Amino acid sequence: MRMEHFSGVGAAPGLALGRAVHWRKVRPRVEERPVEEPEQEIARLEQAVERTKEQIGRLRQATVERMGEAEAAIFDAHLAFLDDPAYVGEMKNRIRDQKKNAEAVCASVTDEMQAMLSSLPDEYMQARADDIRDVGDRLLLNLSGEEPFDPSLIEPGSVVVAEELAPSDTAQFPAGIAAMVTARGSRTAHAAIMARTLGIPAVLGLGRTIEQIQEGDLLIVDGEAGQVTLRPDPDTERKAREQIEEQEKRRIEAVKRAGEDAVTSDGQRIEVFANIGNLQDVEPALKNGAEGIGLFRTEFLYLESRDWPGEEEQYAAYRRVLEAFGKRPVIIRTLDIGGDKDLPYADFPEEENPFLGHRAIRFCLDRRDIFKTQLRALLRAGVHGNLWIMFPMVSSVSEVREAKALLAECREELKREGIPAAENISVGIMVEVPAAAAIADILAREVDFMSIGTNDLIQYTLAADRGNERVAHLYDAAHPAVLRLIRQTCDAARKAGIPVGMCGELAGDSRMTELLVGLGLSELSMSAGAIPEVKERVRSVDTSAARALADRALQEADPEGVRRLIQEG
Amino acid sequence: MRMEHFSGVGAAPGLALGRAVHWRKVRPRVEERPVEEPEQEIARLEQAVERTKEQIGRLRQATVERMGEAEAAIFDAHLAFLDDPAYVGEMKNRIRDQKKNAEAVCASVTDEMQAMLSSLPDEYMQARADDIRDVGDRLLLNLSGEEPFDPSLIEPGSVVVAEELAPSDTAQFPAGIAAMVTARGSRTAHAAIMARTLGIPAVLGLGRTIEQIQEGDLLIVDGEAGQVTLRPDPDTERKAREQIEEQEKRRIEAVKRAGEDAVTSDGQRIEVFANIGNLQDVEPALKNGAEGIGLFRTEFLYLESRDWPGEEEQYAAYRRVLEAFGKRPVIIRTLDIGGDKDLPYADFPEEENPFLGHRAIRFCLDRRDIFKTQLRALLRAGVHGNLWIMFPMVSSVSEVREAKALLAECREELKREGIPAAENISVGIMVEVPAAAAIADILAREVDFMSIGTNDLIQYTLAADRGNERVAHLYDAAHPAVLRLIRQTCDAARKAGIPVGMCGELAGDSRMTELLVGLGLSELSMSAGAIPEVKERVRSVDTSAARALADRALQEADPEGVRRLIQEG
Repeated sequence: MRMEHFSGVGAAPGLALGRAVHWRKVRPRVEERPVEEPEQEIARLEQAVERTKEQIGRLRQATVERMGEAEAAIFDAHLAFLDDPAYVGEMKNRIRDQKKNAEAVCASVTDEMQAMLSSLPDEYMQARADDIRDVGDRLLLNLSGEEPFDPSLIEPGSVVVAEELAPSDTAQFPAGIAAMVTARGSRTAHAAIMARTLGIPAVLGLGRTIEQIQEGDLLIVDGEAGQVTLRPDPDTERKAREQIEEQEKRRIEAVKRAGEDAVTSDGQRIEVFANIGNLQDVEPALKNGAEGIGLFRTEFLYLESRDWPGEEEQYAAYRRVLEAFGKRPVIIRTLDIGGDKDLPYADFPEEENPFLGHRAIRFCLDRRDIFKTQLRALLRAGVHGNLWIMFPMVSSVSEVREAKALLAECREELKREGIPAAENISVGIMVEVPAAAAIADILAREVDFMSIGTNDLIQYTLAADRGNERVAHLYDAAHPAVLRLIRQTCDAARKAGIPVGMCGELAGDSRMTELLVGLGLSELSMSAGAIPEVKERVRSVDTSAARALADRALQEADPEGVRRLIQEG
Repeated sequence: MRMEHFSGVGAAPGLALGRAVHWRKVRPRVEERPVEEPEQEIARLEQAVERTKEQIGRLRQATVERMGEAEAAIFDAHLAFLDDPAYVGEMKNRIRDQKKNAEAVCASVTDEMQAMLSSLPDEYMQARADDIRDVGDRLLLNLSGEEPFDPSLIEPGSVVVAEELAPSDTAQFPAGIAAMVTARGSRTAHAAIMARTLGIPAVLGLGRTIEQIQEGDLLIVDGEAGQVTLRPDPDTERKAREQIEEQEKRRIEAVKRAGEDAVTSDGQRIEVFANIGNLQDVEPALKNGAEGIGLFRTEFLYLESRDWPGEEEQYAAYRRVLEAFGKRPVIIRTLDIGGDKDLPYADFPEEENPFLGHRAIRFCLDRRDIFKTQLRALLRAGVHGNLWIMFPMVSSVSEVREAKALLAECREELKREGIPAAENISVGIMVEVPAAAAIADILAREVDFMSIGTNDLIQYTLAADRGNERVAHLYDAAHPAVLRLIRQTCDAARKAGIPVGMCGELAGDSRMTELLVGLGLSELSMSAGAIPEVKERVRSVDTSAARALADRALQEADPEGVRRLIQEG
């Protein structure tokens, strides 16, 4: 068959070559039949439940190791269903009462629970409806002896081909996947974010063309250009292999130098930090040369817990990260919950527009009990390292003052109780609401540092939900309006004599490094995997050329113009 | 009983004095009993249905007259239920089958339909669940002979007291209500917006204190300060009456001069325009001295229709407004649908954050068929007056260019078809997305005028949904970040030599007039009722003092500081 070229959305950069493996969900078939010995059927059900638990337990463990506790939490929800008497218990009752086979009662009980959960107004419970479907399907496959699709059997170096990839799919990705291509999805889809986190090249949104890809077909995936080559001819294949080899060499070179500082060709140091989301992320951050933590997301403590986590538990976690980084700065962001991040025990009311709602610092200033527990834990942990505290979603001066007053109150309390608390902590804010960028000069007088959170800043500035595929084409970091707000924030920080960093996804995109240096950022924080390449990129930057590039970018009419400028260098 | 003072949220300005009338919804009581003659019972049901239809029909007519077709549309939905065989037909079936009384089957069928509608994922259908409850309650009251609460019996000059007021409540407000006070609600609640539109002083969010207000109690309501005085002593009452008289005198004076231009004390003309939402608004706009239309919302054509409205229908509506205003400018905004504005026939997919979603120009550029129908109607109507076309929700230069290209395409088509089309139309944009303000200088080169839409600009800039009461305290027009974006937009327009107006609610707040003139606005557009007072306020403004006030406001740390500045003058 002939070589074919397909175009899609370049969602995660990098070039890869590998054989296609279709990611398929086997839908179990169910036939209803009468049973004469219900107790035998129940025994068969119990065996299948045990096998299902084992499989999910293994999946959970693998996910913890590769991605951390928070990402594995979904499997706890799956396991909980298998212990729920309303689920497996109800199946046993029906086998006895209705004398039907286990497959039939499993299918009907699962259907009913799914329908019930879907009908609830709460988003968290609705997500559980998808979970019960996953568990039910797995249980049915184990009952029928059909082979479930086992992602762990995918050979390293394969290219995953799928209609679409859900969070529960990417959570099961085995190590060594070369690339992924999908029919649906955009740069802002969950699968795209996951691919960039895992460092896997990805082309999404290929549409119906993926139907031409057969199992085992050779594919070249260019995640930068959004190009896929199916069944390349020998010459194309050879060239791709050479390019991949070159890319790998550069990567190895960058990793070798990851431990060194990132200094521009004209001698300006740019600090390159890591974003981390849990304790498992500390090791890779250190290994990839992080000079500090630019964003420690504390939500994992709240997501993994069955109730609001206590002071001791939080203290222990923060202390571990601070000790691991010694004298290097660790910027810990206070709780950013609400918006798209719900907590089962928090009972957040439904909001029409959660991204414009009661989240992060807004929630914390209303729930001072919860906020003060975290601030006390932070102050205590601060004794053991170089702690910087950062407040998210700030839109006004009064929020900063209130939060700082609470921090002072906590310090007083600890002092009275005779508990050691850090004295000289840097306190800063995230600049991610457009208002914060617009009054950055005023806010800069209130804080010790600022960090630009581009993910939210982009979506608010452009009024485009980053999770909504219908407006995904508008969500663009290279929009001149976004760049102007970044420049304005950097200028304000410089005038106030405080450091300004960036911890949104944009900071880890090495194509943008020169522009970001030119806009005036002195610290960039990103997922660990991106550090070596960004450091390497910084070393080739000349700051006055970068400044000139940024100046020109701010005058461009649209994001396309900005990208053209960057490509031309 | 003693005089009492209560504090709430001042939601609509003005001072009023009147007797309390509690807005109560009578909940019908239902008893089930067997019936021996089902056909008699069915006849009784049919009579009640007819009475209910008549009541709703009268309510509908009154609403059309006072507020326009769009606001009355809710009653069409109510009437449609009474013709739905699944509703009244099902009741008849059950009376025959179950031999129960009409009240009992009406209650059970209504409950079931409400539950069914509530469970649907579609927001439009969920709203219908509230409607069926309204209809069912009204039907039950007519069956049982109980007196439904009839708002048309409220005496003019009364103060409405309520726990909370829903859209279906304010739609039934009779003329002459003096003020409204509620236990729940904020400045951004529906009731607050309605009160400002109707020009009724309102204090919301009084909490449990409203329980002390008894039917017929005398109340003084200060909608500016958010103060309510219950059972004022004679001295307080007398003073309030004097103030109200003074206020009324000033209003009459302002209305007398409403037809004159608004010129500052140092001779600068400020154009004062009206916002209109349908054809019924034209007359009040002219009467109140509107020098043009600053915002003609075209959504009513789409909301009143059962399918996308055609070119002829739109042409006729636009033409009527253009002819009514003659040489005066009429700024017509193209369709701003999506977000919180749904259409029954449009089948918009559910969005997590509709305000950050696929709305207005985004929708129109994707549905060119619908957009071009409107543009053609506009071009044809433009022959009959001074038409300005305005595109909403613009966030990038490419959107403007695309929209202008479509307009040119429509003009070509009309020319080919030999249909007269306006040649010299001003084309502009709304500045309501922060990105548009940030690149106002670049956008200004592409258009003939700009108009600042503060309602959206505030909510995006502050990342606070204006309909979400939990973040209502953050939604604030006086935030320095908002004022800076307004100034930036005005400066850009001035440099490009194009006019810049404001058509958000802020423009009609006479307390802010001096500040807005100082920020550089040359046109203010508002609901008709606010025009006389704003014009009067303009006449007392000195532009250089206004400019100095605005300069100081931009340096304030928070909205409170800005408000203090304004009060101090």
